[in-house]
Amino acid sequence: MTIGILGGGQLGYMLALAGYPLDFHFRFLDPSPQAPVGRIAPRVTAEYTDYEALDRFAHGLALVTYEFENVPVEAARHLAKHVPVYPPPEALEAAQDRLEEKTLFRKLRIPTTEFVALSSAAELAAAVQTLGLPCVLKTRRLGYDGKGQWVLRTPEDVAALNRDFPAAPLILEKFVSFERELSILAVRGRKGETAFYPLVENHHRGGILRLSLAPAPQLSLGLQHEAENAARRILEALDYVGVLAVELFESRGRLLANEIAPRVHNSGHWSIEGAVASQFQNHLRAVAGLPLGATRTLGHSAMLNLIGELPEAAELLAIPDAHLHLYGKSPRPGRKVGHVTVRADSSEQLALRLKQLPAFFQREEFCLPVQTSSVAK
Amino acid sequence: MTIGILGGGQLGYMLALAGYPLDFHFRFLDPSPQAPVGRIAPRVTAEYTDYEALDRFAHGLALVTYEFENVPVEAARHLAKHVPVYPPPEALEAAQDRLEEKTLFRKLRIPTTEFVALSSAAELAAAVQTLGLPCVLKTRRLGYDGKGQWVLRTPEDVAALNRDFPAAPLILEKFVSFERELSILAVRGRKGETAFYPLVENHHRGGILRLSLAPAPQLSLGLQHEAENAARRILEALDYVGVLAVELFESRGRLLANEIAPRVHNSGHWSIEGAVASQFQNHLRAVAGLPLGATRTLGHSAMLNLIGELPEAAELLAIPDAHLHLYGKSPRPGRKVGHVTVRADSSEQLALRLKQLPAFFQREEFCLPVQTSSVAK
Repeated sequence: MTIGILGGGQLGYMLALAGYPLDFHFRFLDPSPQAPVGRIAPRVTAEYTDYEALDRFAHGLALVTYEFENVPVEAARHLAKHVPVYPPPEALEAAQDRLEEKTLFRKLRIPTTEFVALSSAAELAAAVQTLGLPCVLKTRRLGYDGKGQWVLRTPEDVAALNRDFPAAPLILEKFVSFERELSILAVRGRKGETAFYPLVENHHRGGILRLSLAPAPQLSLGLQHEAENAARRILEALDYVGVLAVELFESRGRLLANEIAPRVHNSGHWSIEGAVASQFQNHLRAVAGLPLGATRTLGHSAMLNLIGELPEAAELLAIPDAHLHLYGKSPRPGRKVGHVTVRADSSEQLALRLKQLPAFFQREEFCLPVQTSSVAK
Repeated sequence: MTIGILGGGQLGYMLALAGYPLDFHFRFLDPSPQAPVGRIAPRVTAEYTDYEALDRFAHGLALVTYEFENVPVEAARHLAKHVPVYPPPEALEAAQDRLEEKTLFRKLRIPTTEFVALSSAAELAAAVQTLGLPCVLKTRRLGYDGKGQWVLRTPEDVAALNRDFPAAPLILEKFVSFERELSILAVRGRKGETAFYPLVENHHRGGILRLSLAPAPQLSLGLQHEAENAARRILEALDYVGVLAVELFESRGRLLANEIAPRVHNSGHWSIEGAVASQFQNHLRAVAGLPLGATRTLGHSAMLNLIGELPEAAELLAIPDAHLHLYGKSPRPGRKVGHVTVRADSSEQLALRLKQLPAFFQREEFCLPVQTSSVAK
């Protein structure tokens, strides 16, 4: 079975590595001739909007999936005329627009921040009045890693923004104070069966994920069930097939859904070593119509992103149960070039092991040290 | 770093999959244009004795290793003039000749079966007299999977063989009655550091490995130390770098070394899921001069070889913690086309899980059910 993947970055790379043992073949489409997957799989280099290239790409494929959430929905719909596309293009569409996403949460009665849609400066004052300060103005589309967001704390912030109003569809969200950011990786098969990884605690710097702890420290069964129920409703509403990530805020013991990613997700990379079946394997099992793999954890894991620079491999690999994943990209500032997963039998042992990591990882941006004591309540 | 691998079968395939996350690049040399690695790495299709092709293959490589133990020693020596070759060609040489292998064991005071070298029919009678019946005549070179062996139980067997004497250098070995077959996977780094996986219990049918249990049931610390000490002496005597497999017989609580394989080994495939660092990753770490990874087990594993035919993937993958590895080869009788690893937290749970395997695996040749209760004494 040859699986087509739209996008040829590290997520596609790790999907292919997870899929080869199951005898899946892969073909990628990516606009960049430098896409890392070129080393391990055939690749069509073309824009997502090049329909002729899309047809060439799709020829003979058993199905198409994607590893990049900003694939144009029209490209996915075009492919879906000829070959099954999972997750469904509707999921891509919902995830690409913050307003659609939050409207979906509201429809499914999944708690989320209060929000108001905006399309002009004229509507800003009334919207701010409705939600109250502080609040956050966001572009509905294509915002990522903290880009396309404006925090409004004072009437002066509102006035300043009004003078230089962004020319894009927008959404104003009430500012939420939260204790921590969490995410849940969920997977749904072609027959509707579902599986869920434990909630993960995520730490960001400059809007970019730096550290995930899996399972999330102090994870209660109640919180896990709340997250699973929210994720299940989204999976079912979208008739979803594959892995879905739901990002959440924990605020006073309750969860607020923030956004979804219709693909394997950076906060699930720990599952390669830290779970019986990884998110990558489970995404492939789901889209290929195979039974889902167990999402049970193997001990406690911490995943650290490598952004823009690489550690000394030998120094890192001297730490027991530290696992290095390089994506074959040349380092440049802000670029995700790899990740490290450190695993341990207990959260206490994990905390110790993280302290043993080389100096490279002890800088502020890696968000260490962390409090990792985990008690199931 | 680009690593050259002589041989492009499933062992090379799994080495590449283990090496990509560490950003190793690979180039393979194999005489067959059908070698499975062609899908995931560049490959030179040539005979091992084609020195021009060897030079083309070696150009720009950081080092060369092998996944096939019958690579001609001269090819390895030729390459070693220009590029580091690990394990050293001497190890290849020792492993290719049963007489050299057993002479090495004897020199290192590692218990092994009694043996006598033979080169003609004229010497057979005296050799049989020395060792006594029953005994086994084996070709010194190129025997594998039970081929090139003659069991001599009676004077009539000896007389019959004498009339049709094999035209090859031979070794006569005393027939050993043993309780079980075991193997130990050992690894040595470029600075001489060593690590050992636990002893594995192996079950063969028709001379082909069908089932490995890791750790071996009822594995005592004493037995493990005995195996590690033997493996360490071999590693050091050969100034070895990489993974080495030592096959052993357990006979009345003692170990007898049977043979070595200077490469990753079928009885170590369980380590992909069943150990912190797999044999494939550790072989690459060793040859690349990186610290060795932890050989600690994650629970209890059973590895079942798929010989000549494939199970229904969906049926197998419905079993929790069952892992399928297909090698991308078309099935034909006697051909290793994949393996399955089943893992569990305890030996009791493993035994239960093996009972749940589909009917395909419950046929006699898979050597199930097994007694897996494991007690460290």
